[in-house]
Amino acid sequence: MILSPGDTIGMLGGGQLGRMMALAAARLGLKVHIFAPPGDTPAADVAAAHTSAAYDDGEALAAFVSAVDVVTYEFENVPVAPLRPHATKVHPSIAALEAAQDRLTEKAFLARSGLPVVRHAPVESAADLADATRHVGLPAILKTRRFGYDGKGQVRLEPGSDLPAAFAAIGEAPALLEAAIPLAGETSTILVRGADGRSLAYDHPLNAHSEGILRRSTLPGPLNAAQEGEARGLTAALAEALSYVGVLTVEWFIDTDGQLIANEMAPRVHNTGHWTEDGAVTSQFENHVRAIAGWPLGPVDRKGAIEMHNLIGNDVDAWREHLHNVNARLHLYGKAAARPGRKMGHVNFMPPPVDNRGEGC
Amino acid sequence: MILSPGDTIGMLGGGQLGRMMALAAARLGLKVHIFAPPGDTPAADVAAAHTSAAYDDGEALAAFVSAVDVVTYEFENVPVAPLRPHATKVHPSIAALEAAQDRLTEKAFLARSGLPVVRHAPVESAADLADATRHVGLPAILKTRRFGYDGKGQVRLEPGSDLPAAFAAIGEAPALLEAAIPLAGETSTILVRGADGRSLAYDHPLNAHSEGILRRSTLPGPLNAAQEGEARGLTAALAEALSYVGVLTVEWFIDTDGQLIANEMAPRVHNTGHWTEDGAVTSQFENHVRAIAGWPLGPVDRKGAIEMHNLIGNDVDAWREHLHNVNARLHLYGKAAARPGRKMGHVNFMPPPVDNRGEGC
Repeated sequence: MILSPGDTIGMLGGGQLGRMMALAAARLGLKVHIFAPPGDTPAADVAAAHTSAAYDDGEALAAFVSAVDVVTYEFENVPVAPLRPHATKVHPSIAALEAAQDRLTEKAFLARSGLPVVRHAPVESAADLADATRHVGLPAILKTRRFGYDGKGQVRLEPGSDLPAAFAAIGEAPALLEAAIPLAGETSTILVRGADGRSLAYDHPLNAHSEGILRRSTLPGPLNAAQEGEARGLTAALAEALSYVGVLTVEWFIDTDGQLIANEMAPRVHNTGHWTEDGAVTSQFENHVRAIAGWPLGPVDRKGAIEMHNLIGNDVDAWREHLHNVNARLHLYGKAAARPGRKMGHVNFMPPPVDNRGEGC
Repeated sequence: MILSPGDTIGMLGGGQLGRMMALAAARLGLKVHIFAPPGDTPAADVAAAHTSAAYDDGEALAAFVSAVDVVTYEFENVPVAPLRPHATKVHPSIAALEAAQDRLTEKAFLARSGLPVVRHAPVESAADLADATRHVGLPAILKTRRFGYDGKGQVRLEPGSDLPAAFAAIGEAPALLEAAIPLAGETSTILVRGADGRSLAYDHPLNAHSEGILRRSTLPGPLNAAQEGEARGLTAALAEALSYVGVLTVEWFIDTDGQLIANEMAPRVHNTGHWTEDGAVTSQFENHVRAIAGWPLGPVDRKGAIEMHNLIGNDVDAWREHLHNVNARLHLYGKAAARPGRKMGHVNFMPPPVDNRGEGC
């Protein structure tokens, strides 16, 4: 399916990622139709059409799919079952969506595709957890298998931690235990694969998190040429295995020996790629749109040194200060309320602010 | 009035200029409400709200104005009378709108503000036209006073032209006759003035027209440093005289003696500023939004050599070819039908295509 200007992209999800993809689509003469449950949907403010319905409302979903030319999504927790009848219209594929929804099957899939993953074990009960600590070792991170993001559904275990309490803290949900790695840093591969199978990957940032939420991405990043090549190659193989179309993200741990270990994949544009909006010739949002439209990809070359800072919660109150900074490019998401931990916007600094260089990992 | 993120810009007009301003506003977390008569309104596809009503529908206009935080416009032929009760909320000011709506009062205003204008005379009748040709000389251009754009409502007179036929050709509307200048080229000043009175002007392109429609803008352009300074200074004085807030455009003729002569002003973002979207640190669209929001202006520095090509009518059929060109940045307006002479999109080439260098004037 190759789209023409004037055609419509159906977008599952109405948050900031959908909004930024909608803005990129608009510049290319494409319309966007947002499908999202009732609530704050900033993407709908820049879209030609908006369906407000639950993801499992099969009737609303069928009407939506028939009204659009291709379906994509801005987050990986869209229920898969209601989408199955419409699979041929969905990019990235439902297989990619499924692979990313469960941390345990995701790890297995990553490993099967040749990506190094951390030592881990499944946890279905407090008794399993005790076994898992023996297999994985401590310290380790207990994570729910599903619906975790931005550090939610995670708890760190040290030698002597109260295991039943930890399992209770994640709601006794099906989980897995992952070995805690001595970290030198974190990075991510943002790869885009076109309908013709050609793929391109952006440069790798150094990603700094705190409280489980991304704070900053800095480029140039931490990888040497060999590591860049390895990360790109492994991500391309993963995309190939999924016959992937669109932007695919792999988040990597870099351990203190310089080894890359795949943390997770996201079948979508990614917060660690927000620097591309100002720092790359073609942004991740535009390239996702080009890919799912069946169009040629745009160049992913980086324009120079850049640093992305997330505006979390009240960070957004500094918007006016960023507007005064000639090196800052402000992006705000149009969300109503700046709740603690909520991503309200981001700023790309070109060049990066001097007082932040050298921090991070 | 200083806007906050989440506030709403009211936009009179629903075409491509409104669309590109809406996209810039969205990136800064502002909402846009489009007010436009029924018809093709591509700006509404990227706006949070849309009122479809005639510009002289006072009731609809009042409801619109009360629903937004500031009112701006994307073209200068918005009727002024219905806007007067809402004047304090309108930027650029109604005075700027009025000055630009009638070519004769516009010329007088430009001259009064110190800008050189071409020799001209008013024409109300075929008899006036004969007098005007004696005062102005031939060749000359007969132009309707109102509602002319993209070469519409204009006819060129040579010695021996049939004057009554020429007057009939422009519908015997109130008009003016302008001396035809021996042209070395055309350029334009795109100036943005903030609510604090500070103004910035972009670099001057070489603008190439054919059949009255802009085809290309090329930078670096035709002006030397002294001419750049003169054009900026005169435009800043004009903006000052109008207590202007927003983007103001002056189109200039450059005669064969190198003199700058003001052709017309436009109280809005302008086609000859479309290169700024990819070629300047801050686009004209974003800077217009910043100005009318009461926010600080962004830097207007040019990033390098660039050439903007308009996609007129069927030119747009080449969209796929432009997507394949790594030096091309494609912008499509989402208009339904590619009628002859209709602006469907534009392409910014960085660097400019080699086979077009040196053409133009």
